[in-house]
Amino acid sequence: MNTSFFGELLQTISDRGRALLVRDRRGEASRSETLVELCEDLLSGRGEASGVALAREILGRYAELTTGPRIAFFEALAQRFGTDQARLEQAIAAWRDKPSDATAADVHVASEPRRQELFRRLNLAPAGTAALVRMREQLMDALDHRDDLAAVDNDFVHLFSSWFNRGFLVLRHIDWSTPAIVLEKIIRYEAVHEINGWEDLRRRIDPADRRCYAFFHPALVDEPLIFVEVALSRDIPDAIAPILATGRETVEPDKMRTAAFYSISNCQRGLAGVSFGNFLIKQVVEEVRREMPKLSTFVTLSPVTNFASWLKRERASEGSQVLTDADKATMTILDQPGWYLDAAAAEEVKDPVMRAAAWYFVRARSPRGLPLDPVARFHLGNGARLERINWLADTSEKAMEKALGLMVNYRYELDDIEKNHEAYAEKRTVVASSAVQRLLRPALELVPIAG
Amino acid sequence: MNTSFFGELLQTISDRGRALLVRDRRGEASRSETLVELCEDLLSGRGEASGVALAREILGRYAELTTGPRIAFFEALAQRFGTDQARLEQAIAAWRDKPSDATAADVHVASEPRRQELFRRLNLAPAGTAALVRMREQLMDALDHRDDLAAVDNDFVHLFSSWFNRGFLVLRHIDWSTPAIVLEKIIRYEAVHEINGWEDLRRRIDPADRRCYAFFHPALVDEPLIFVEVALSRDIPDAIAPILATGRETVEPDKMRTAAFYSISNCQRGLAGVSFGNFLIKQVVEEVRREMPKLSTFVTLSPVTNFASWLKRERASEGSQVLTDADKATMTILDQPGWYLDAAAAEEVKDPVMRAAAWYFVRARSPRGLPLDPVARFHLGNGARLERINWLADTSEKAMEKALGLMVNYRYELDDIEKNHEAYAEKRTVVASSAVQRLLRPALELVPIAG
Amino acid sequence: MNTSFFGELLQTISDRGRALLVRDRRGEASRSETLVELCEDLLSGRGEASGVALAREILGRYAELTTGPRIAFFEALAQRFGTDQARLEQAIAAWRDKPSDATAADVHVASEPRRQELFRRLNLAPAGTAALVRMREQLMDALDHRDDLAAVDNDFVHLFSSWFNRGFLVLRHIDWSTPAIVLEKIIRYEAVHEINGWEDLRRRIDPADRRCYAFFHPALVDEPLIFVEVALSRDIPDAIAPILATGRETVEPDKMRTAAFYSISNCQRGLAGVSFGNFLIKQVVEEVRREMPKLSTFVTLSPVTNFASWLKRERASEGSQVLTDADKATMTILDQPGWYLDAAAAEEVKDPVMRAAAWYFVRARSPRGLPLDPVARFHLGNGARLERINWLADTSEKAMEKALGLMVNYRYELDDIEKNHEAYAEKRTVVASSAVQRLLRPALELVPIAG
Amino acid sequence: MNTSFFGELLQTISDRGRALLVRDRRGEASRSETLVELCEDLLSGRGEASGVALAREILGRYAELTTGPRIAFFEALAQRFGTDQARLEQAIAAWRDKPSDATAADVHVASEPRRQELFRRLNLAPAGTAALVRMREQLMDALDHRDDLAAVDNDFVHLFSSWFNRGFLVLRHIDWSTPAIVLEKIIRYEAVHEINGWEDLRRRIDPADRRCYAFFHPALVDEPLIFVEVALSRDIPDAIAPILATGRETVEPDKMRTAAFYSISNCQRGLAGVSFGNFLIKQVVEEVRREMPKLSTFVTLSPVTNFASWLKRERASEGSQVLTDADKATMTILDQPGWYLDAAAAEEVKDPVMRAAAWYFVRARSPRGLPLDPVARFHLGNGARLERINWLADTSEKAMEKALGLMVNYRYELDDIEKNHEAYAEKRTVVASSAVQRLLRPALELVPIAG
Repeated sequence: MNTSFFGELLQTISDRGRALLVRDRRGEASRSETLVELCEDLLSGRGEASGVALAREILGRYAELTTGPRIAFFEALAQRFGTDQARLEQAIAAWRDKPSDATAADVHVASEPRRQELFRRLNLAPAGTAALVRMREQLMDALDHRDDLAAVDNDFVHLFSSWFNRGFLVLRHIDWSTPAIVLEKIIRYEAVHEINGWEDLRRRIDPADRRCYAFFHPALVDEPLIFVEVALSRDIPDAIAPILATGRETVEPDKMRTAAFYSISNCQRGLAGVSFGNFLIKQVVEEVRREMPKLSTFVTLSPVTNFASWLKRERASEGSQVLTDADKATMTILDQPGWYLDAAAAEEVKDPVMRAAAWYFVRARSPRGLPLDPVARFHLGNGARLERINWLADTSEKAMEKALGLMVNYRYELDDIEKNHEAYAEKRTVVASSAVQRLLRPALELVPIAG
Repeated sequence: MNTSFFGELLQTISDRGRALLVRDRRGEASRSETLVELCEDLLSGRGEASGVALAREILGRYAELTTGPRIAFFEALAQRFGTDQARLEQAIAAWRDKPSDATAADVHVASEPRRQELFRRLNLAPAGTAALVRMREQLMDALDHRDDLAAVDNDFVHLFSSWFNRGFLVLRHIDWSTPAIVLEKIIRYEAVHEINGWEDLRRRIDPADRRCYAFFHPALVDEPLIFVEVALSRDIPDAIAPILATGRETVEPDKMRTAAFYSISNCQRGLAGVSFGNFLIKQVVEEVRREMPKLSTFVTLSPVTNFASWLKRERASEGSQVLTDADKATMTILDQPGWYLDAAAAEEVKDPVMRAAAWYFVRARSPRGLPLDPVARFHLGNGARLERINWLADTSEKAMEKALGLMVNYRYELDDIEKNHEAYAEKRTVVASSAVQRLLRPALELVPIAG
Repeated sequence: MNTSFFGELLQTISDRGRALLVRDRRGEASRSETLVELCEDLLSGRGEASGVALAREILGRYAELTTGPRIAFFEALAQRFGTDQARLEQAIAAWRDKPSDATAADVHVASEPRRQELFRRLNLAPAGTAALVRMREQLMDALDHRDDLAAVDNDFVHLFSSWFNRGFLVLRHIDWSTPAIVLEKIIRYEAVHEINGWEDLRRRIDPADRRCYAFFHPALVDEPLIFVEVALSRDIPDAIAPILATGRETVEPDKMRTAAFYSISNCQRGLAGVSFGNFLIKQVVEEVRREMPKLSTFVTLSPVTNFASWLKRERASEGSQVLTDADKATMTILDQPGWYLDAAAAEEVKDPVMRAAAWYFVRARSPRGLPLDPVARFHLGNGARLERINWLADTSEKAMEKALGLMVNYRYELDDIEKNHEAYAEKRTVVASSAVQRLLRPALELVPIAG
Repeated sequence: MNTSFFGELLQTISDRGRALLVRDRRGEASRSETLVELCEDLLSGRGEASGVALAREILGRYAELTTGPRIAFFEALAQRFGTDQARLEQAIAAWRDKPSDATAADVHVASEPRRQELFRRLNLAPAGTAALVRMREQLMDALDHRDDLAAVDNDFVHLFSSWFNRGFLVLRHIDWSTPAIVLEKIIRYEAVHEINGWEDLRRRIDPADRRCYAFFHPALVDEPLIFVEVALSRDIPDAIAPILATGRETVEPDKMRTAAFYSISNCQRGLAGVSFGNFLIKQVVEEVRREMPKLSTFVTLSPVTNFASWLKRERASEGSQVLTDADKATMTILDQPGWYLDAAAAEEVKDPVMRAAAWYFVRARSPRGLPLDPVARFHLGNGARLERINWLADTSEKAMEKALGLMVNYRYELDDIEKNHEAYAEKRTVVASSAVQRLLRPALELVPIAG
């Protein structure tokens, strides 16, 4: 029995229930008011026998709401489906009377926002999980202006973290034999290096030296959660263009030594805050090793964010610890549009920029003590090390503007992952290769001189 | 990529992590003490990078524990992984200071027993879900004597209720094309009418007038959660033997009008308290209707429990409201071993026993106001009605002893399910067919005379 | 075990065999000469143990041949792998001596061209069937100029007819869940109404009122043999543009009464002469009926071929039995470029053209007594009837040029198929609807007058 | 779309056709006469439009025939569906007039028994292939007494050899996850070492050191054609009992060096004469090597046939070249029932029997020059070598009686397969290990002395 049959069947059950419901409830005044009442029914014992139908009815009506009523519904979720305060008060009184694990457990149950049970029951509906993920997406859109809805969002994250526990995820190889209904989502969700239509997609998943893997959840049929694109090559790649080029030559299997993760994209905005990337990378490393035992090097080819604006600030800062006056002078080259097309100019400015980049990655810290680059934080937190900074690795307009064309390799060595992770987790140490370390050295020597 | 490959892959990841772990932790004193430390690691940030490996290590070590250390581990779960009391105290203080949804939410988070997050992280391991279900089975074995472990059990039920939400279950048709690895479990788990080997199984799932359906969860591969066996027939069946008989004739498709659910078995003891049966029956009704639109009657053929002992008490009770003296006199027949083999005697005692049975089902109540028969409670709670009580429907030794051979049909009519459910849920009304009602009438008339 | 695994495995076996072979046979003079020798080896007992390897070696070498040597190889197939004449002579002598079924059977065996066994043994190679289909494609390219190769072609057709027996074909629904590797072939092979990329494809297979089905053979993985595109609609469609339009509205399920087959394409040129279309249409009719029992009308919307040139001849013919002088006069309208864009002119010429078209389909015959239109011959031979001729149904340049914009509906009524087929098969009767018949009537009346 | 759906659909098509047919043909006199007429219809153009229905009708009626009419039908196949003699005569005349490939091809077509096209058209029916295989089984039962039916049998073999070409076969791993409907056939078809029920089956396919593989054909769903059982072990096994024992220990993966094929069974009697075993063994060798690259030894553990009766003759022969008088004297031990249970006696007789067995395998020849043992002929013909003769390797009653308890290992070394095959194919040389050769040496020395 396949899933689409299953879906169809659930629909049948619900349709019948829905017919009953609609018969009873026709002509009610306000849509979102009704929704709230239906939600109360679903939470009450009364709705138990027709739970599936009721859940579907609610999700169906929700889907038809326009923005205004939708916000009103979120407000109702926040205000009317929070914790039962009276019940909580009672539980807390009991706990204060006699603090114990048992009374604490009662406090836990009593303090659970009623929304959580509501969401669990809404999940009874066919395609309920997908509907709830979408509901949260729309909630996130409303969140910016509405702090009072944050609690609802927290409940979603809590529930999704449990439901999308990595133990329930399934890894699938994405290739040219994958159904089109999944592939079109790969095209749509690619967030790092845009995929320009089906032929471009094919170049990324079909050749023998390319791989693509995605995590799926059984309740979200045909919907990838996150995917990664991998290029198999001899050496660690130092630029993105050769990877994406049309007409390039396929690497022969016996020359492959490196797997380069050059793009990783989350697909479900509604699952923001539920982390999969860490698991995906590690599992794909194992998968690829299993298939090709000769592969020895696992790296990313990652974008750099914020570097250009950071460097601008440093160049403007009189007391910059990073840049010497000479550096600053050379860097005026960067103010020329298209500077990187002038080979000599590019060569001249390369050294100070690379040194500054090493500093940006290894030394620079946010007020909270973290590295400045979010991609770096992700990979370092996963236990990777900063392997190499690549000069003029991405000369697309966007990358030139944000990163002065830099890209970075993070390297995953299974034996070091835990050690690296701990170094980062405990002391925020950025583990970097000696090549990157070396970039810092001249800077170190120069600092006293500059001072 | 199929699931067994997936499993194998996860194992690879974990093996490597495990190697690292084992290297570090060799030679530790007490096994369950170590387990507790590993659990603390898993909960700490420290274990994040090697979460999968750590989770597997813990489950692996747990699996090797003998009873004593296992109980010790459960005790540790109860005592050391309960709520963080200091944190809770703080959250409660904040709530008392300013009761709001936000502070209540903080109380909720602070009051969550640390076990719950521990269980969620243990689920990262390959086959983690199955291991946790088994862990709870073993916990249940210990529960009888140990009230202090009940809180741990509650946490399991809470988590499993969310994970095994019906929205994540998959219905599968079980037939002779089902893999043997699943079928052997159907044989093993059948709890109502024992299956005697593979040929008996085949008689139940292979003929054109038989169906079997089971719910599965994607994380428990090849493990049914609950299954139901269905006989398709012209009329509502009134005895179990013809259904299970060898050499019986298959009913022709165009004569089928009735689907009789004659056996429903839960498979996972570790999921006790998480309810699927309600959903299973309703979904199978729809599935079977879809396949055979001419089917119009959906009933069970259910065992009766406790009736014999209840009747014994009534016969002994001088002031019985149920039995007349004449009834009691006639019922001495029941004291003869093998009384039902004597057709005349059986005929004589049938009427008073059937009347008493109607009373047992419709009128009799437990001190808490519930019907006495647990199977009745289940089906009435699901919205079925009591359709018919069947005389000498099961003459197996066990059924004669517990039910004087009676079996019962509960009927599911989609249009009445919600109404029936509500009548039962709100007023404990037992909705019964007029045939069953009629059995009560003569008794009513006799009562005054007897008085 | 899936097919790609299987393929890989076969390759492994062959690779080893190939290694052995290559070791022995290196340095041979003429490539196609070698091929012929390898073929002899394969046919001899000598090649038995390494049959798979040998077959693959031959197909591999064949694939590398350029046109010249390929033709030489075909010549060798024709000349050296024909019937063993000596053996045949002997068998015929025996038969003449004593004509019997047994001696006739010996003649049959002795007269089989050795090619047939060669082809059967080449099929041992992994992907052998696909390679043989391709070999025949290339043979067909050579056939035009070379009657001496026709016998080789006949042997292919004989073998393929047996291998691609309809009993071995599998029907599959093609939709948006179909793997891209199959879908790209649907795009490529569509021969009637070109598919312009993936979005156009999606419009044809994804909407709820569209269907696509294809026949596959288990030995040609991911390769459709023939496919049909179906539009579900209320009425019989009378033009192609509304079917292919972007932005059209989807027909609601409860309004669907008609399934219109608007495109049917053979995919494998190498299987020309092996007929599937007949079976495909009938099976799809049943499949669609099964899914939607309310559908009652099954028609094609088919292109018309040769009509324009035939009409031109009739217009030029002084003694035309089809056209009156008045018709001819009116038809000068057709000589104006873009005549159909002038509504009045089009309306004026419609009647005589439609009458002529009815004659073209129903009355006109080739010297061999067959209807002139090959599409008509196909559908009439399958038992369909000519339902309707549609005016200005396809105004694409090609259709205006070849068919003056006409398209035709052929109708499949299951109850009449056999009768229609026999009428056509035995007497070449074109079964036509009364609407089409009516178009002929005025012509009939005019004939005597014209005479 | 799965196969069972496909089957159902075909049935629908046929049912409708059948209805039409039955309407027309009701009340016909003799069943098999009717069958013959239906067959003529199917072969005629007349049956083309309703081919599928007609084919199914014929196979349905055939299935209901009792033995007498069935034989009559076979006779009709032999007499009325042989070669069209007039047509053949004409083709032969043309050939004699001008012998060429073209006229020879015409002879081939004209000499084809009409049965072959009949069988091809019968294969249009749903499950037609299975029905034809069964038809041939029943034909084989009749063959013993009826030489006149041999031609029909030849046509079946010819057709099946083409249809069941190894290029169309699919290898599948059989294990405990295989559907019961296939597993029950493994139990039923095992022909070498009987499988005693499902638990015994499980012991053969489920443990980590056991494998089972089968060939399937896409048109025979759930029906294995041939299967092989494999035991993975450290050393070459020298007895069957330890392999089949209950409670044995599973071999650990890193100790496995040998794959022993201890049972190979054909499943479809109707496919006798179509050879798969050769391909199966070689493909399984590759499959197992792929999975476990450390395996280096591939052998069978095969039964011995005819040896006991051959030895009896040699013992009785005065001029035996094989046995010395001393041997004969010692061999009187074999005449004691249960002789092998007496360790000393068994030891005494071992040497002469083993020497005789070596002679039986390596030297002895049938009048046609072939080795006497059919299992030996099969494996030697496939390119295996005779590796070892095992003393008291199977002490089952049957094996003691036929083989004096001997079993044999044949060894497949990929590098030698072709060489061994050729040695056997060309000169009937039995390639044997030096261990077996050594057994022959003393005999050689003794011969002159004995002379």
